[in-house]
Amino acid sequence: LNRHHGGVKIQPDRLLADIEALAAIGDTGDGGNCRLALTDEDAGGRELVVGWMRDLGLDVRVDRIGNVVATRAGAESTGAGNDAAPVMTGSHIDTVGTGGRYDGTLGVLAGLEVVRALDDAGIRTRRPVAVAFFTDEEGSRFAPDMLGSLVYAGGMPLEDALDIVAIDGAVLGTELERIGWTGDAAVPGPAPHAYVELHIEQGPVLEEAGVTIGAVTGVQGISWQELTLTGQANHAGTTPMRLRRDPAYVAAQTIGFVRRLATDLGGHQVGTVGRLDLHPDLVNVVAARATLTVDLRNTDEAVLAEAERRLRGHVAALASAEGCEGAWRRLARFQPVAFDPAVIDLVESTAERLGHSVMRLPSGAGHDAQMLARVCPTGMVFVPSRAGVSHNPAEFTEPEHLAAGTEVLAEVLTELAGVVE
Amino acid sequence: LNRHHGGVKIQPDRLLADIEALAAIGDTGDGGNCRLALTDEDAGGRELVVGWMRDLGLDVRVDRIGNVVATRAGAESTGAGNDAAPVMTGSHIDTVGTGGRYDGTLGVLAGLEVVRALDDAGIRTRRPVAVAFFTDEEGSRFAPDMLGSLVYAGGMPLEDALDIVAIDGAVLGTELERIGWTGDAAVPGPAPHAYVELHIEQGPVLEEAGVTIGAVTGVQGISWQELTLTGQANHAGTTPMRLRRDPAYVAAQTIGFVRRLATDLGGHQVGTVGRLDLHPDLVNVVAARATLTVDLRNTDEAVLAEAERRLRGHVAALASAEGCEGAWRRLARFQPVAFDPAVIDLVESTAERLGHSVMRLPSGAGHDAQMLARVCPTGMVFVPSRAGVSHNPAEFTEPEHLAAGTEVLAEVLTELAGVVE
Repeated sequence: LNRHHGGVKIQPDRLLADIEALAAIGDTGDGGNCRLALTDEDAGGRELVVGWMRDLGLDVRVDRIGNVVATRAGAESTGAGNDAAPVMTGSHIDTVGTGGRYDGTLGVLAGLEVVRALDDAGIRTRRPVAVAFFTDEEGSRFAPDMLGSLVYAGGMPLEDALDIVAIDGAVLGTELERIGWTGDAAVPGPAPHAYVELHIEQGPVLEEAGVTIGAVTGVQGISWQELTLTGQANHAGTTPMRLRRDPAYVAAQTIGFVRRLATDLGGHQVGTVGRLDLHPDLVNVVAARATLTVDLRNTDEAVLAEAERRLRGHVAALASAEGCEGAWRRLARFQPVAFDPAVIDLVESTAERLGHSVMRLPSGAGHDAQMLARVCPTGMVFVPSRAGVSHNPAEFTEPEHLAAGTEVLAEVLTELAGVVE
Repeated sequence: LNRHHGGVKIQPDRLLADIEALAAIGDTGDGGNCRLALTDEDAGGRELVVGWMRDLGLDVRVDRIGNVVATRAGAESTGAGNDAAPVMTGSHIDTVGTGGRYDGTLGVLAGLEVVRALDDAGIRTRRPVAVAFFTDEEGSRFAPDMLGSLVYAGGMPLEDALDIVAIDGAVLGTELERIGWTGDAAVPGPAPHAYVELHIEQGPVLEEAGVTIGAVTGVQGISWQELTLTGQANHAGTTPMRLRRDPAYVAAQTIGFVRRLATDLGGHQVGTVGRLDLHPDLVNVVAARATLTVDLRNTDEAVLAEAERRLRGHVAALASAEGCEGAWRRLARFQPVAFDPAVIDLVESTAERLGHSVMRLPSGAGHDAQMLARVCPTGMVFVPSRAGVSHNPAEFTEPEHLAAGTEVLAEVLTELAGVVE
């Protein structure tokens, strides 16, 4: 890489103004945003952002699934179809139903601020710099999530994606046509030279550590399982303890084991029982059945698989000891994604060079970057989320952290694109 | 007591036929019965049973709350208003919505069979023998349960009882009038000389032990509490284990502690968490709130109070360690009832004398007998429930166990009433 020593001066006020303006579309009145994928509100957001892209003189292409890629030409561009692969940044502008104003939008709008800063400084990069936003990252209306980037990266055929039916019964392809965002650029899209995404952490780790920049090492693998424990309903007064076959007791032991498992395996292993239902759920009846979910995540596939094995083995013993039956159902399983070591190093060293505190951490949530990681060297920059809150109107990141992240992004993209001296 | 050595020969077939006939009223078609208190079905049951009482020449009195007491005169009777206090047996003929055919009805119909057997043998007892059935024992339609016997024993003013509103909006006094069962006998009713009730166990203890007769020592005290644990909702992927404040984890530890508490305190202590709700109850969100109930029961008031104290203390420590708040709400609290030692001894020795296996045990469920225990020496006879099942169409007791229990009841009542030799 052609090491760039200049410094790209970003202007935080412009970024904040853009975030404010985009947040006015689908404003839920409580500080939050609702721009579910391919709704009129999503279309409104698209119009606004693409308008800004055109104002910056970028080459805007819309693909068959509605992903938008806006490119600032590089010095090595030699005309249509023959350009050097761009260094790409981006994220998404759709939100969950009760979304905040930073999740996704930060990565897209910071990308545009980087372009403005490059323009201001009159910097010509060797490779093009592209700013993208991908369709339906949240998956709240059309499952699965990260859909647009999945299709961009070749992970799902276009036809399958267009046939997806929303929770409201709408068909994805039809909705894309209706809002006028079916483009003609082919999918899968061209592989970028590299992809770096700025995003809010959506977790409490950076805030807790008092650190400004996260150099994201990858995305956790996810295992979701549902466990149904069947015992015997009994009278709470007349049934001695030794004669009980209580699935609530086995469920409780399972919750305790999930905590121990995560603690024992250490590292980035987490485990959560967030759902638990008893039947018949009465104060004076020993439950007949308990249904609970176990969410296990790890950056290391081998450890995640080991966690699943230990969980199933231990629960089988617990259930048997109580005279209960246990039945598992797999709800979801994704392998971990590891980001590119050189990109991770670059994010970390750039933050240090700019004087920001920095730490490496994995992402616990899914991001478009994990799809791009299938086709090019990829990394992410995290900035702190207040109290770790996201997917919530209370989602908030300090303006100085937004600025710091954008500054790091600007330097990293410039470094990766190379500067024509 | 004038020891009776004769033997009162009961005829099981008559008892079984009566159970069958009563079960035809409010038959739910699945082997079960629905005669909720003061419904037309309850009225139908009352007509049938009171018809039998009159056929036996008993003096039938209905009181202001609809309790029915049918009395066989004793040798010491000296005319109206001047009789010796009767030895009373009985139970109830109302059922829960999904009731079986033995709960309550056995005690009433076995009482009538005892009267028939006394008549057959030409036995004159010194004291009168009375067979009663009490209004609304189940409490399924009009809370609280054991209402009729509570009013009989002076535990609730008549006016308060008549004003109770049903779950279906009906008023108790109005319903009692409507079905024609408001009597003129005063409440509280006269204290019997003694009260002995035959009932199915509704639990698995006798069956498990292979024992035919239970000499019931009393009724467990009951403590119902609701615990609300408040933590912090968090992302299941992005929140490290050490930063969690997970009320589901504290709920699980509480369930484990309730089991340990019951086991450690031993004796007749039982503890049950039958209800547990998480909020928001999502697979990928650490819960913000857990609400659970704890049902603690013991025959010993001091131990029950100690169990409550230990539970609250331990949960406070668990919640604090996890950074959660715990709030308790008392749902119900009843002190244990101890039956009369002489009556317990008599039930036990009578069973032994008749060659039935017998054991002492407390009742985990509430019974009319615990109300009568306020005004006279009281005891109960239990017979086994198959698999401990009750309040269910599958409720079943072997015919030979029904016969054995009735035989014991007959001897105990005759013993207590005294025989004119």
